Amino acid sequence: MASFGGIDLGGTKIQAVIVDEAKQVRGSARGPTPTSGGPGAVAASMAESMREAAADASIEVDALGGIGVGSPGVVEDGSVTSARNLPDWEGTFPLAAELQQELGPDVKIGNDVQVATAAEFHLGAGRPFSSLLGVFWGTGVGGGVILDGRPWRGRGGAGEIGHMVVAIDGARCTCGRRGCVEAYAGRAAMELHVRKLVDKGEHTDLLKLAKEHDRPRLTSGIWARALEKGDPLAEKMIERAIGALGAGIASAINLLDVEAVILGGGLGVRLGPPVAKRIADAMQPHLFADSRPPHVEVAALGDLGGAIGASLLVAPLAGGGEGASARPPRAAA
Amino acid sequence: MASFGGIDLGGTKIQAVIVDEAKQVRGSARGPTPTSGGPGAVAASMAESMREAAADASIEVDALGGIGVGSPGVVEDGSVTSARNLPDWEGTFPLAAELQQELGPDVKIGNDVQVATAAEFHLGAGRPFSSLLGVFWGTGVGGGVILDGRPWRGRGGAGEIGHMVVAIDGARCTCGRRGCVEAYAGRAAMELHVRKLVDKGEHTDLLKLAKEHDRPRLTSGIWARALEKGDPLAEKMIERAIGALGAGIASAINLLDVEAVILGGGLGVRLGPPVAKRIADAMQPHLFADSRPPHVEVAALGDLGGAIGASLLVAPLAGGGEGASARPPRAAA
Repeated sequence: MASFGGIDLGGTKIQAVIVDEAKQVRGSARGPTPTSGGPGAVAASMAESMREAAADASIEVDALGGIGVGSPGVVEDGSVTSARNLPDWEGTFPLAAELQQELGPDVKIGNDVQVATAAEFHLGAGRPFSSLLGVFWGTGVGGGVILDGRPWRGRGGAGEIGHMVVAIDGARCTCGRRGCVEAYAGRAAMELHVRKLVDKGEHTDLLKLAKEHDRPRLTSGIWARALEKGDPLAEKMIERAIGALGAGIASAINLLDVEAVILGGGLGVRLGPPVAKRIADAMQPHLFADSRPPHVEVAALGDLGGAIGASLLVAPLAGGGEGASARPPRAAA
Repeated sequence: MASFGGIDLGGTKIQAVIVDEAKQVRGSARGPTPTSGGPGAVAASMAESMREAAADASIEVDALGGIGVGSPGVVEDGSVTSARNLPDWEGTFPLAAELQQELGPDVKIGNDVQVATAAEFHLGAGRPFSSLLGVFWGTGVGGGVILDGRPWRGRGGAGEIGHMVVAIDGARCTCGRRGCVEAYAGRAAMELHVRKLVDKGEHTDLLKLAKEHDRPRLTSGIWARALEKGDPLAEKMIERAIGALGAGIASAINLLDVEAVILGGGLGVRLGPPVAKRIADAMQPHLFADSRPPHVEVAALGDLGGAIGASLLVAPLAGGGEGASARPPRAAA
């Protein structure tokens, strides 16, 4: 039985998996994303994680039928440009060629959010639907669009739901613009806002919890803990984030009228179904066709979804095609 | 040579055209939309306009190869439901059957904005592109989506760009919701706002111009005249509308990354290229991929676009298919 590799290249971690033809995970490994050394150091760490995942699955890397990579930044012909969350990665780096030389098998690169959306569509919470919007709520807010069973990428940059505008002249976004969904809901933007408020004298246990758990950042786990403890500022910030997500996702639904929204990402998965319900409630007053709201479901593949989705770039799906375009619409209800 | 009929059913007027196989307009007629008498009276007026257009083209109505209708409201299987701008049309009315019985030829009904978008895509300003967003700026703000040469309708309600949210808890929209693009840019919403401001003592020549030109409403022509005269309130209101349109359309582009935006509708066509340029400028600060903004073009078919688009529901296009799905992508650059 053939096996395939998948790597999810994130801003803080590199997740590698080995899947078999049935898309079952046979091995996995995770390592930190290097914070220095540029694209070369990142590629070396990716190769290392892939070798560890292969060892975990008791298989040789060069026996893999291919390796798929989900990457941030602009992905084109195996190269990655302007991966802003990665060290010294402003220019273009031939990531596929580098990994292929290092590891052996063919390497294909896709957009991280698009491959994660494809994974949920083919194998996860999106299986009952033929059209959906993947919303990945973490450090930023990313999105993937699947229409009639196929990914819609536009001119290559579609899916930026985090940068849909919910407040003209609103809060400053980490992208530099104003009033984007991500300006209110992105974990990075929320942390900046919290630190500013604390400097102004507001009280919260968020920063104390991060220190106690030895986290340099307000991770999804820290947010979850603060909410469990009823921290008022944490609750206020999450409510504000949900309001922005609700308006932005409802706008996307008014434009596209897809059947479902799949909520993933660190915060989406960690806060889970209760927060998906709150987002659905926040969408409702903005939905034009409000008598038939879309389904809002939490991503089913959890932390491994991105890497599994990356493996779909090289692993043939039942139906024969490549990647997210293979499953016939409504086939898997 | 076969001929086909097209009817654009609007809230204030009914526009009928006769086109030939080459989609050239051979005859046309226009009448007011009845303000009372319900769907039956509207259907009778539509039949009358179609007969006049046929006479204008020197052809018998029952010799037509079919009649297409672009209608507001929810269109399903030849019936129209909840056409809010039309008199007593809250329920469902079998418009296709009624017109067919009255006129003879087969009748097909489509959504008014979707057929107008199809017309611009196949025959108008959208011809050089394979994916685009039609934005119809008039009494309301409607939209149509074409992706890879095919209309995207979602579950039937896609394209509501006028109800994308640009201000959470923002201005009240004529749809009852808050902060929609249409709440700032729709002619109906703008008129309500102007009348409220005038009641509060603000000065404008808009209402005087409407009276002078015997218009019960602030039509697109009245807005154009007030802008030409430099009326400060008119300019302020249009600037506000352009800001909302810029943010909403940019959000749609961030999500879909289509090649072009075609600006139609009464105000869009009347204010023309200068306002299209201003909308493009207003989009720019919100575009995520701001180095390659989409083309923003004014609809080329003018007032007849909706009726011509309706005729495409029944007139075969070169390529053989039906309606907007027939043109192969990028075929007509």
